[in-house]
Amino acid sequence: MVEARKIHQIEGTFKMRNGHLEQPVVAYETWGELNFQRDNGILLFTGLSPSAHAASSEADPSTGWWEQMLGDSKPIDTTKYFVICVNSLGSCFGSTGPASVNPETREPYGLQFPVLTIEDIAHAGHEVVKSLGLTSLHAVVGASMGGMTSVAYSILYPDMAESLVSISGSPRATPFAISMRSLQREIIRSDPAWNHGNYDKDEEPVIGMRLARKLGMLTYRSAAELEKRFGRELIPDGRQTGEPFGIDFEVESYLEAHADKWIGTFDANCYLYLSRAMDLFDVADHGGSVEVGLSRIGARRALVIGAETDLLFPIEQQKQIADGLRDGQREVTFHALPSIQGHDAFLVDMDRFRPILCDFFNCSMNQPGKLRKVE
Amino acid sequence: MVEARKIHQIEGTFKMRNGHLEQPVVAYETWGELNFQRDNGILLFTGLSPSAHAASSEADPSTGWWEQMLGDSKPIDTTKYFVICVNSLGSCFGSTGPASVNPETREPYGLQFPVLTIEDIAHAGHEVVKSLGLTSLHAVVGASMGGMTSVAYSILYPDMAESLVSISGSPRATPFAISMRSLQREIIRSDPAWNHGNYDKDEEPVIGMRLARKLGMLTYRSAAELEKRFGRELIPDGRQTGEPFGIDFEVESYLEAHADKWIGTFDANCYLYLSRAMDLFDVADHGGSVEVGLSRIGARRALVIGAETDLLFPIEQQKQIADGLRDGQREVTFHALPSIQGHDAFLVDMDRFRPILCDFFNCSMNQPGKLRKVE
Repeated sequence: MVEARKIHQIEGTFKMRNGHLEQPVVAYETWGELNFQRDNGILLFTGLSPSAHAASSEADPSTGWWEQMLGDSKPIDTTKYFVICVNSLGSCFGSTGPASVNPETREPYGLQFPVLTIEDIAHAGHEVVKSLGLTSLHAVVGASMGGMTSVAYSILYPDMAESLVSISGSPRATPFAISMRSLQREIIRSDPAWNHGNYDKDEEPVIGMRLARKLGMLTYRSAAELEKRFGRELIPDGRQTGEPFGIDFEVESYLEAHADKWIGTFDANCYLYLSRAMDLFDVADHGGSVEVGLSRIGARRALVIGAETDLLFPIEQQKQIADGLRDGQREVTFHALPSIQGHDAFLVDMDRFRPILCDFFNCSMNQPGKLRKVE
Repeated sequence: MVEARKIHQIEGTFKMRNGHLEQPVVAYETWGELNFQRDNGILLFTGLSPSAHAASSEADPSTGWWEQMLGDSKPIDTTKYFVICVNSLGSCFGSTGPASVNPETREPYGLQFPVLTIEDIAHAGHEVVKSLGLTSLHAVVGASMGGMTSVAYSILYPDMAESLVSISGSPRATPFAISMRSLQREIIRSDPAWNHGNYDKDEEPVIGMRLARKLGMLTYRSAAELEKRFGRELIPDGRQTGEPFGIDFEVESYLEAHADKWIGTFDANCYLYLSRAMDLFDVADHGGSVEVGLSRIGARRALVIGAETDLLFPIEQQKQIADGLRDGQREVTFHALPSIQGHDAFLVDMDRFRPILCDFFNCSMNQPGKLRKVE
């Protein structure tokens, strides 16, 4: 079996905003085939936590994080496009990050890893694109942190992508989003097991990561969704732990289950670096204002969408991106979706998000009735 | 000098929903004089964290937590009303709570304290009212947790108060509010210094309390206020600590300052008990539904107000209380205020909250121009 995940090693010194890495690697997966004209490439950037495994493939049939969006006859149709998804620089699923061994010291980078920026992630993604022989892209696509990265990419490489798709992204983090992420980072750093970033793989700060994940979930979803799904339902006596101040309500049990699933899957230092990269990102760094920064985006077409219930990347910010792009005479499609799932809607409210991406990428899905359901 | 804070000792066994206390005490303060008819009493319940010191007095001239609302010629005019503010049962400012010594063991109650409910707090408040010789009240007033308590009091003692004032309250916690408070409790419990509730006074779980306070602040305020006050302003180099993942933004510094101020002022176990009491409160426990519960409130007049930006006690819930009271043919005043300060607006947006309370209590303030500013 062919390994689905491929690794590209960047030659020489990779310069970052505040430091450098020697010969870092970037993990990626691809779907579909590059056409003869080499103009059907789509570059996909991820949110904070996923790997490059966006969808299943022959080489790796496990379900990907955007399985319903990407594949044969899906909204991003891999029979038509050559899709590249990169694991973000700084992450821990194959790309060089704080958990990787620093070739200069033969120890994990830990906090010796340079300050990471969204622009660094975009540059690293571009190295993969170049290595595959592409000199242009049909589109650059990203959601959440990936939305920020796709915007950064379109500013840094204005001639590369014909289209930009920014989903639940942001031109710069709001102080509320910064505060929530800053608190998650402080929670992790407050776990004695974090040990100033020097923890062994089998002694990770799991308590801090558990609490940070729960707080993350509360910012990724919406109060309306929790109300609808759980209300004030109590957990049955049989599932009570008897622990004082343990779990009373189903909604607490839901958060517990998410935290359980998360623990051990993500490196704490990588989380800190990626989380802070989102806070530091500001389109205004590219020209002095958000408007000027957005005007530097070279894409001819753009799709900007988000959920009205998003607390973390609020819909006003999606609108700000769309308006900024319109000023540049681009063909811009903007949708404010009434999904109740908050920031995570792009991962779960497929009935609303799929038809829009299908339309944008002119896909030929065979369920027009179901697909058109957008309010 | 007379001590402002008074203590009432409840005789015998005080029954709680899930246990009892022997001769607990309730701390309270009063302002103004009880009139000859004994019908000018106002009972004030507090939010989670304040003491009974709602306003300054001759006996204690320090600023109270609702200084601008309560006093001579203020919206709740203490030249006209006899105001009693109680420190909630379970709190740590004079009333019996988990930090108090259990007379049966001569050790602090800690987690041996019975499960606390909002109804228990209401009953304890009523013991003070009775001890002062009052058989009726002009009004029962509360904000936040105190709003819940004033609603509970009006259900449990339907013949006592002629008026009910519920400010940024709730007939029952939403799953989002439950989740946020549950996470604060888990953060405190995860601090090794908490030690399953057995910590010494000088070895409190300060790290957990600090993080819980920051999360609390983020639920008490609103994204709009943080945007307006702090935006993405960075702290100057001179205030940088050099600590990795320390503070970058002014909004982080603001949260840090609030946490610093909070540490050492509140007992961790008391916090856990009061926080959970809010989650457990459900007006529907009084008759099977929120509607039936609210219909049992005996007050003839009611004022229900809140802030539209409140994440924790959302404005829809204020409306639910108002609607439930209207069904009972009461005279109900409802205001959804456009304050941007979120849940805490009742403590800070005095230009909007004061005129409304002034109107309700027919106060005679001498700044009508300033006071009328309500949008």
